[in-house]
Amino acid sequence: MKCVITGTGSYIPSKVATNEGFEQHSFYNEDGSPLSHENTVIIEKFKAITGISERRYIDNKLVTSEIAAFASEKAIKDANLDRETLDYIIVAHNYGDVKHGTHQSDTVPSLGSRVKHLLKIKNPNCVAYDVLFGCPGWVEGVIQAYAFMNAGMAKKCLIIGAEALSRVVDQHDRDSMIYSDGAGAVVLEASNDSNSGIIAHQSATFAYDEAHFIYFGESYNQELSDARKYIKMYGRKIYEFAITHVPNAMKECLDKANIPIEEVKKIFIHQANEKMDEAIIKRLYKLYGKEAPHDVMPMTIDKLGNSSVATVPTVYDLVLNGQLEGHHVSQGDIVLFASVGAGMNINAIVYRV
Amino acid sequence: MKCVITGTGSYIPSKVATNEGFEQHSFYNEDGSPLSHENTVIIEKFKAITGISERRYIDNKLVTSEIAAFASEKAIKDANLDRETLDYIIVAHNYGDVKHGTHQSDTVPSLGSRVKHLLKIKNPNCVAYDVLFGCPGWVEGVIQAYAFMNAGMAKKCLIIGAEALSRVVDQHDRDSMIYSDGAGAVVLEASNDSNSGIIAHQSATFAYDEAHFIYFGESYNQELSDARKYIKMYGRKIYEFAITHVPNAMKECLDKANIPIEEVKKIFIHQANEKMDEAIIKRLYKLYGKEAPHDVMPMTIDKLGNSSVATVPTVYDLVLNGQLEGHHVSQGDIVLFASVGAGMNINAIVYRV
Repeated sequence: MKCVITGTGSYIPSKVATNEGFEQHSFYNEDGSPLSHENTVIIEKFKAITGISERRYIDNKLVTSEIAAFASEKAIKDANLDRETLDYIIVAHNYGDVKHGTHQSDTVPSLGSRVKHLLKIKNPNCVAYDVLFGCPGWVEGVIQAYAFMNAGMAKKCLIIGAEALSRVVDQHDRDSMIYSDGAGAVVLEASNDSNSGIIAHQSATFAYDEAHFIYFGESYNQELSDARKYIKMYGRKIYEFAITHVPNAMKECLDKANIPIEEVKKIFIHQANEKMDEAIIKRLYKLYGKEAPHDVMPMTIDKLGNSSVATVPTVYDLVLNGQLEGHHVSQGDIVLFASVGAGMNINAIVYRV
Repeated sequence: MKCVITGTGSYIPSKVATNEGFEQHSFYNEDGSPLSHENTVIIEKFKAITGISERRYIDNKLVTSEIAAFASEKAIKDANLDRETLDYIIVAHNYGDVKHGTHQSDTVPSLGSRVKHLLKIKNPNCVAYDVLFGCPGWVEGVIQAYAFMNAGMAKKCLIIGAEALSRVVDQHDRDSMIYSDGAGAVVLEASNDSNSGIIAHQSATFAYDEAHFIYFGESYNQELSDARKYIKMYGRKIYEFAITHVPNAMKECLDKANIPIEEVKKIFIHQANEKMDEAIIKRLYKLYGKEAPHDVMPMTIDKLGNSSVATVPTVYDLVLNGQLEGHHVSQGDIVLFASVGAGMNINAIVYRV
C-alpha cells in the first residue's frame, strides 16, 4: 500500500507587508538596548541573511482556522474528493486562533473541529485534531496520517499547516520581520495501485539543551509593561543547531528509503531563513561528497516570509501548479520534504510524486 | 502484537478548593443577569447534579507541563522503564501552559518538548508532540500511540493528559465550580507475549452543529471590560449530546472488540459531571436490555472535579493502586476507557488489563 498526495491547496494572504514598512519601527536587543544601526541598514542586513523582502499577513477579520479551511477547500477540490469520506482532519499550528487586536490563543474547540465545521463535514467518523510540533508540525501531521493508514485506521486524510504569526510578533524585535501568515493543505490517500507515495520518513525532538531556543517571551521594548508575550528566538543557536542536525536527518531518511541523492529532484524545505536553508542543503550534499544542484530547492521566502507550518505545503502546492518559475516536478520524481523548528523538532519525508 | 499499559502515574494537586469557597462569588447568567438564587442554593444544586464537593488547583508556581512531568515520572517508575528507550511522548491538553496571574497560553515549545526536557531525556529519536482534542485528548493520544505501534513506528510511548483549568475559569460563571487541575500518564508498550492490551478503539468528531458547545468566551460579568476569555460551555446541550452519542460509541467499540457487556469489569469514563456519567452508563446498558452494575464506574469527581484530559488516566491509576475504595481490577479483566468533550469529540478503548 502507498500513501499518495492526491490534492494540494494553499492560501496566501492578500496583505503584503514590505521591508520598507518596518523602517519606522523602534528595534531593541534582548537586553532592552536599542539596536546600534539605522533601520535601513538593519533591514538591508536582514534581507541579505533571510532573503525576505516581503511577507504576507491575513486580513484583520480572519483567524488561523479560517485560512486553514480556505487551503483545505482547494486541496479537496484538487483531489476531486467527496469530503464526507475523510477519515482524519489533522491541523498543525502553534498558536491557535488569535483574533486581531487580542492576545489570547483560542484552541477550544480545536482548530481541527473548526475546520471540519467550516468545511460542513457531517460524518462523525472523520476525526479532527490538532498537532503541536513547532514549524515541522505539518510534515509531522503527514507522518501521523501515514501511520494511521499503515495501521489500517484510515484511507483518506486531510493534513493542514496554518499559522498567523502576525498576531504574535513583537514589533520591537528585529526578528518580527521574519514571520508571516499562511496555510497549506494536502489530501493523503491510501492506494494499492499507485507508484507514487511516501517512501520513508524521519522525526526527531531535541529538547535536552534545545527546548527553549524558540519561546514565548516579553517585548524587547522594556518600557512596555503589559507582560504580554510574543514569539521569540535565539537565531544564532537555531542556525548552528539546524545546519548540524537537519542534513543528518535528511540523509538518514534517504538512507531508509534507499534512494541515492542524485535521484532527488526537489527539496521542499521549511522556509525559515534563506542563508540557513542554503547552508543545510550544502551540508546535505557534502555528506555525499557532492555539490548541491542550483535548482534543487524551490524558495518562496523572498515574497512570503516564514509562515511556520504553512511553508512546506505551500511551496509544494505552488510548484505543482507551475506558479514558481524555474521549478517543475513530474510524476515519478523523488522529492524530499523537510522541516526544523520549535521543540527543537526536525523531520523529513522521502516522497515519489 | 499487543499494546499494553505497563505503567501509570498521576499528579493530584495539593490545593483543595471546596464548594464553600465559592459562596462569596458573584454568579451571573450568560446574558449578564445575576443568578436568581442565593449562592448556598446554587452550590447545593450544583453538588446534586455534578457530584462535586471539592476540586484541586495547582500551586501558583506551577504550570501544566510541570505537572505533566510529575505524573510521567511516576508512570516511568511504575513501568520500570529506561526513559531513553521511549519512541514518543504525547501530551494531551487544551490550554497549554498558562502562568498564574497571566492569561496567555504558552504552547511554544510544545508541552511535549517541555516534558521531555523536564524528564531529561536526551535521545532525539524520542518524538514529543501535543494533541489537542478536547477532554478526550488523552484517550486519543493512546489511540495514536497504538497506531504508531501497529504501523511499526514505535514500541514504547508515554501518553500524558494534563490540564490546569483553574487558569482559564470565569469566577462569575457557575460552571467554574466544575473545573479542576490534574495530570495522568501511562506508558504503553508493544508486546508479543502478553494477553493484556488494547482490543478495540473508537473515535468521533461531531462538528457540524456541535463545534462550539464548549468554547472560549468573555466573562458573564459584563462590568468587566478586559475582553479576556475563559472556558465556557452550553451544559444542557452537552448533556443531551453526550447521553445520545457516547453510549453508542461505547457499544460500537465493544462490538468491534466482540466483547459482551457482561465481561466489562470497569468503565473509566471522563469525570465530566456525575449525573451525566450515570445517565451515559445507564443508557449503554439499556442498549443491551440490561441495568448497569452499581460498582462498574469508579468516580473521582466528588473530590477531584473535572480536570479535562487528566481524569481518565488519573482514575485508572488510582484504581490500579487500590486508592479508590470499593474498586479493584485484576489481570485479565476487561475495562473500557471513554471520554467526551470539546470538539465535540468522543472516544473509547476496550482494554484487557
